[in-house]
Amino acid sequence: MTTLSKPATYYPNYEVNADDIMTVIEICHPNSPHKKRAFDMIQNAEVKKRHLIMPLTDVVKQGDFGERAKVYQDAAIEMAENVAREAIHNARLSVDEIDMVIATSCTGFMMPSLTAHLINRLSLRPDTKQIPIAQLGCVAGASAIGRAFEYCEHRPDRNVLIVCVETSSLCFHKEAGRLQDFISNSLFADGAAAVVMRGDDQISGLRLTHNQSVTIEDTMPYIEYQLTDKGFKFSLDKDVMHSIPHVAPYLQSFCQDKLEIDANDVDNTIFHTGGRRILDELERCLDLAPDKVKHSRACLAETGNTSSVAVIDVLRRTFEHATKGETSLLAAFGPGFTSEMSVGIWQ
Amino acid sequence: MTTLSKPATYYPNYEVNADDIMTVIEICHPNSPHKKRAFDMIQNAEVKKRHLIMPLTDVVKQGDFGERAKVYQDAAIEMAENVAREAIHNARLSVDEIDMVIATSCTGFMMPSLTAHLINRLSLRPDTKQIPIAQLGCVAGASAIGRAFEYCEHRPDRNVLIVCVETSSLCFHKEAGRLQDFISNSLFADGAAAVVMRGDDQISGLRLTHNQSVTIEDTMPYIEYQLTDKGFKFSLDKDVMHSIPHVAPYLQSFCQDKLEIDANDVDNTIFHTGGRRILDELERCLDLAPDKVKHSRACLAETGNTSSVAVIDVLRRTFEHATKGETSLLAAFGPGFTSEMSVGIWQ
Repeated sequence: MTTLSKPATYYPNYEVNADDIMTVIEICHPNSPHKKRAFDMIQNAEVKKRHLIMPLTDVVKQGDFGERAKVYQDAAIEMAENVAREAIHNARLSVDEIDMVIATSCTGFMMPSLTAHLINRLSLRPDTKQIPIAQLGCVAGASAIGRAFEYCEHRPDRNVLIVCVETSSLCFHKEAGRLQDFISNSLFADGAAAVVMRGDDQISGLRLTHNQSVTIEDTMPYIEYQLTDKGFKFSLDKDVMHSIPHVAPYLQSFCQDKLEIDANDVDNTIFHTGGRRILDELERCLDLAPDKVKHSRACLAETGNTSSVAVIDVLRRTFEHATKGETSLLAAFGPGFTSEMSVGIWQ
Repeated sequence: MTTLSKPATYYPNYEVNADDIMTVIEICHPNSPHKKRAFDMIQNAEVKKRHLIMPLTDVVKQGDFGERAKVYQDAAIEMAENVAREAIHNARLSVDEIDMVIATSCTGFMMPSLTAHLINRLSLRPDTKQIPIAQLGCVAGASAIGRAFEYCEHRPDRNVLIVCVETSSLCFHKEAGRLQDFISNSLFADGAAAVVMRGDDQISGLRLTHNQSVTIEDTMPYIEYQLTDKGFKFSLDKDVMHSIPHVAPYLQSFCQDKLEIDANDVDNTIFHTGGRRILDELERCLDLAPDKVKHSRACLAETGNTSSVAVIDVLRRTFEHATKGETSLLAAFGPGFTSEMSVGIWQ
């Protein structure tokens, strides 16, 4: 009886809004033919604010990959430690009771991994198992939940710490001038989240019953990284908007098979905050009442798209409202094009 | 009854020897104070040849991270597909019977991950689970075996494809002039390996019974990456030589607990090919007869240190000699400082 206990989230202090990022685009690309369209899209994106690890004045003057990697390492470790301690506390466990740590982060890179740093910083047991995940992008938070579920499913005495950390501001490239670069600049944001999966049922939370991965054939260009001397750079193809109609039938049949109800009868959906259009498409394709995606919309409005972090934040928001016996569908979407989905019942 | 079936390995066509790399160092760093010591160490390293994905003339003139990332992606996908197909064939399975793919690679980066590329290239099922591992360095091959073991242990109807790909030549930096840079230049190499873990006992191979992870406190600087505008750069601290005395007691007690014999009574050891000194230390600390590490030494002599690939290569070599009922200890070592160890019995 694997249980997701109460998550912890953390957002850094520097806040930006749509107007701030439009000003940056205006200054860096005064003659861009994409500007008008981008500004229309940014103003309709339903992102009220985002949090960054540094002031926007520093974001725009960042150096090469080496320089960004140093900033990443310090910020990622600090945010990760912070949310990890709170999540372990929320799970009513001591650090000695953690058997595996999964860390997800696609906006920076370090070796030794964040998982090794967490073992040291938190004084986890030396035999703690590690899964660091860097290349699953926005689906990674839900992937971590899937892998933790498979580990705990037959091991009720084990507990997995999941930590997601993103610093999208370190993937900002001043010279990037395509329409999708402007959209990325206005959407992605920084933050951290952690959650403990307990293998037992000795705590209230979301009791997961099933998990499924889905990778859609021939859709790899939808979401990619470009790698440059300045590090990682998101590359979103406009076809990414076609991704949800591909995935929705899997989400529907997963709910029907495992919960024996249609997706629109699930009490709470916990969707990765990909963007307004992604949430609109989920509503449309699964015939969901608008109320069903409200926590994902609130997460988008208050924090933007924090990649692997977002789904754990939406889980935290759901935690405050779900009641015993309610059903949940948790899902995220990312490069591959891959979706990870889990279902469970609140206890 | 999880079983490691027969692995596949692949090494690219371009071969270099110690003399070639000493010539490069001579030209790039004619006045280095470290040269004499480095050359002595290189000549005593017991690496006869290494394989690279490009001629040495191209290695020395590589550009920035973006340029290297393009070369990486093409080479990694091609090598990975090649060994994956052979490993699935060796396991007497069809591509439809693979439930999870774990890809390890610490010498380049791509998103979507190598796991998503393999799902597409091999036409694996859309519900194939993915674990891409980038940040575990040389321990990643044995980590993948550990995570696959945990997945299959309670799921005898499942199968995991493990693919390890390394292109260390893409981490070469002409201007790097420390002693440890010269050693890295002469030790690390390129290649790929794959192995399928079957959850059942319907094939001969190494039947794994137990796995353990060990991360030693306060040893993170032993092996690190430096990140630069030209990408990843290995950084080996000379203290890495002290790592094996830390890990050996864990290896010893793991054998005593799980196989009920001392490590020096295990029939075959399958050790990551870290370097001559690492293998000497394992022999010394575990009181092993020289014959016991012969496959690791042969792997080192013929291919250098291929990071996550090496342990799968040593498993392949052991496959050709082990007989039914023999015991094996498989272990690798990497950043953290982390060791992953498994034991099993040949069937």
